[in-house]
Amino acid sequence: MPSIRHEVLIGAPAEHVYRALTTQEGLAAWWTPDSHAIPARETIARFGFGPDYFKEMIITGLEPSKTVDWRCVKGADEWVGTTISFELHPGDPQTLSKSHPELADQIQQQDGSAQETLVVLQHDGWREQTPMFAECNYTWAQFLRSLKSLCETGEGQPWPHQHALQPRMAKARR
Amino acid sequence: MPSIRHEVLIGAPAEHVYRALTTQEGLAAWWTPDSHAIPARETIARFGFGPDYFKEMIITGLEPSKTVDWRCVKGADEWVGTTISFELHPGDPQTLSKSHPELADQIQQQDGSAQETLVVLQHDGWREQTPMFAECNYTWAQFLRSLKSLCETGEGQPWPHQHALQPRMAKARR
Repeated sequence: MPSIRHEVLIGAPAEHVYRALTTQEGLAAWWTPDSHAIPARETIARFGFGPDYFKEMIITGLEPSKTVDWRCVKGADEWVGTTISFELHPGDPQTLSKSHPELADQIQQQDGSAQETLVVLQHDGWREQTPMFAECNYTWAQFLRSLKSLCETGEGQPWPHQHALQPRMAKARR
Repeated sequence: MPSIRHEVLIGAPAEHVYRALTTQEGLAAWWTPDSHAIPARETIARFGFGPDYFKEMIITGLEPSKTVDWRCVKGADEWVGTTISFELHPGDPQTLSKSHPELADQIQQQDGSAQETLVVLQHDGWREQTPMFAECNYTWAQFLRSLKSLCETGEGQPWPHQHALQPRMAKARR
């Protein structure tokens, strides 16, 4: 079964990333402003993307500063039934370099934060490797970049600007 | 066999994107400045990432403004033997919306270029879904964003800055 995997290094403590992944304020600042969620297991979180589309996720697992698990229950047909998990692995650059040698470039390109967090995204249960799978894979990476930006600078790049190359200019033009 | 798929919309004609994917100047501006390549089948292109690491690709297929195919022959063990293809699908926003409904958000977030090109990246032949697979998946998306930036603005964000949130500030600080 095809699945999406991403690894992104964020220059912030795991507690900080966990808040961005579980609170309404955090989710609104990197994914979509129209987020409705509370950090509690077995609740349903709702994410709107304009007037005509939304996704609903059951929060199936929460382990503070460690894991966030969702199961999609409403949304595009290809998404329903898929599961999404975010795993957080905190550490200083030296420790992460040893446990995760694949992160060498990302660690080198950080500005040397003392506390960093590796976020592993897994989006499983896709039935096929469709065009939507490929588009969502690219777009997840842009939203993860938005999450990184939020946690490192205080400003994310949520929908509908996740693909903008220069968000401020893009906003000014609208 | 696990494989990487991405779909990114670029606001530029396919000829322009094809040049960025096949000429040394183009590859240097979005992937790595240390690129050595000529747009000719069965030649070997070499891509250096610092003094200690490089990849070599045999260019196995070239169809002007349509496809670019590579097979990795040197590099990290997990990359050797894998194949990478870039497929270009040009069109105006209306036509692309119909043939690729999954691109709705990307089309809406473009600044209405008359000629756009969907780039489909496929990176196949991975033996396992390892941590490096997940890291490379995320990083491919950042390099594709760099390719998009190069084709739309004339400026890419090649290695070693593909993960920087604000490349100019990052450069000034070094």
